[in-house]
Amino acid sequence: MTHNYLGLDAGGTSTRAVVVSSDGRCTGVGKAGSGNPTSAGVDAATTAIRSAVTQALKTAEIDRVSGAALAVAGTGNPDYRAAIVSAISDLVEDEPVFEFDVLAAYFSGTAAPDGYVLLSGTGAAAVRVEDGRLAAISDGLGWLLGDVGSGFWLGREVVRAGLAPLDGRGAETSLTGLVLDRLGTPHDAGLQGGRTNTLVAATGALYAMPPLRLADFAALVFTAAEAGDEVAAGILDRAAAGLAETLAAVRTPEVDGPLVAAGSVLARQPGFAARVAPGAVIATDGLAGAAVLTLRHAGVPVDDAVYHRITSSLAQLTRV
Amino acid sequence: MTHNYLGLDAGGTSTRAVVVSSDGRCTGVGKAGSGNPTSAGVDAATTAIRSAVTQALKTAEIDRVSGAALAVAGTGNPDYRAAIVSAISDLVEDEPVFEFDVLAAYFSGTAAPDGYVLLSGTGAAAVRVEDGRLAAISDGLGWLLGDVGSGFWLGREVVRAGLAPLDGRGAETSLTGLVLDRLGTPHDAGLQGGRTNTLVAATGALYAMPPLRLADFAALVFTAAEAGDEVAAGILDRAAAGLAETLAAVRTPEVDGPLVAAGSVLARQPGFAARVAPGAVIATDGLAGAAVLTLRHAGVPVDDAVYHRITSSLAQLTRV
Repeated sequence: MTHNYLGLDAGGTSTRAVVVSSDGRCTGVGKAGSGNPTSAGVDAATTAIRSAVTQALKTAEIDRVSGAALAVAGTGNPDYRAAIVSAISDLVEDEPVFEFDVLAAYFSGTAAPDGYVLLSGTGAAAVRVEDGRLAAISDGLGWLLGDVGSGFWLGREVVRAGLAPLDGRGAETSLTGLVLDRLGTPHDAGLQGGRTNTLVAATGALYAMPPLRLADFAALVFTAAEAGDEVAAGILDRAAAGLAETLAAVRTPEVDGPLVAAGSVLARQPGFAARVAPGAVIATDGLAGAAVLTLRHAGVPVDDAVYHRITSSLAQLTRV
Repeated sequence: MTHNYLGLDAGGTSTRAVVVSSDGRCTGVGKAGSGNPTSAGVDAATTAIRSAVTQALKTAEIDRVSGAALAVAGTGNPDYRAAIVSAISDLVEDEPVFEFDVLAAYFSGTAAPDGYVLLSGTGAAAVRVEDGRLAAISDGLGWLLGDVGSGFWLGREVVRAGLAPLDGRGAETSLTGLVLDRLGTPHDAGLQGGRTNTLVAATGALYAMPPLRLADFAALVFTAAEAGDEVAAGILDRAAAGLAETLAAVRTPEVDGPLVAAGSVLARQPGFAARVAPGAVIATDGLAGAAVLTLRHAGVPVDDAVYHRITSSLAQLTRV
């Protein structure tokens, strides 16, 4: 008899849920907004998680699942975990288990129990996986203290480099125009307090955003670098060096498994991913990994055949 | 007949008020907490400002002054200015004038109407002064977007460089021990989620602080660099290059006046100040400059004799 299990991958941008049967067929998926209780607030996160889960169950045409593995970022606080478990307790028979969201990213690229994942999304980290578990992690220390080469890191560098020439610092760069266009700040050379109205308006608009929103400017560095901008190329060089150092910190000769590249920056920029993680499998979302994690916790061996069934059934479901 | 005027220098750390007579004698000073309405909140700032002003009047043994010049950071919002004026309206006869706080810093180092000031305190900026007025400013864009070489910038680099070796990134540095000592984080090699308890505790403590408090770690870079730490020396090299670029952005051949170095980083680190601003006069606080500004606004010419009277009378007052 087949059982159904729930896999959940919840981060700062979105929450995805998948229902997978014990033979590896994914039969339902659901999606909602941020499920990270630290950044989105615990009420918004639990609402998003329940919404994604009920959608997945509805697509699968079932009322509940036997078990669940929850890969949710920002659940260091035990109260947050309890709130999430409580929000879906009527939908899951066994007590759900929590997993590191980086493991969902890893298993979205491979079924191998030993290997590495390099992530660059809003944050950035590298993880060594041994026997399906997190064995070591480097960076992932957040926007203020780490996350070198992440979307936030890139966006912050883009904005700083773009603003600098507006008061005579730094090298001229096409990032200035790209940042101002994105902000919708018109060119205005009039002065207030020694600064141009352009610069005053741009800094005002940027400080009105939550700091993490600077990650929205990350894509501009690729646009500018591809057009030959040297300042942008320099930012990418430093990001690549930082990510290489982060990955090197978890590498060990004893573990010679596959390398997965994950996170929005690496998934959307395959050229950059190939540079910082040569030969890596690129994982575009964490759903397949969430399915693997929930099967592993249910005691289902995830071999290549099961893994192939997971990814191909998911591709069909998400294509519709 | 001599009149009395009020000079006020209010920033994120403290608020200082001075009463100066029209012949340049300072007769009263007062001090209170942060008077920056943007960072401290408008109620706390106006309370601090009134407290500093009433102390200065009391020391000077007068009830009110003829006029006032207020060099207050963070008063871009007109409502904040109105609240400050209202808080001291019974103590000042004429409508107070607002001035850029960077001008108080400049005139604390010189009476010359044309020249330059390079500031590195919590923030960092350079200003060209012409005819006693702010003619150009570079950087000063705040902790997130600029302030290269400031206390916040240095403290952030110190903390990031200090934490990196705790998960295998970056070069070994004595900053790690200095940062952990300052946080009071004990050494604990036990692991949680792939990270040492030391790293988890340190990042938790740092994220519990307001981001600007990272400026408190700036002094550690000088301690480490003096003891030969190469990572610390590299941070200082980048800070010095950034401050040199900021100063160069406001330099013009037409203005050949004195250079003043100001702000807590430069005032406390004369060796670093000599490196980034060779030949500069170091201004240790903004009180003398606030006195100059209020006299200039009252139409009193501040020549070398008056300036000398301001600084010597202030030295006597603040020594007591």
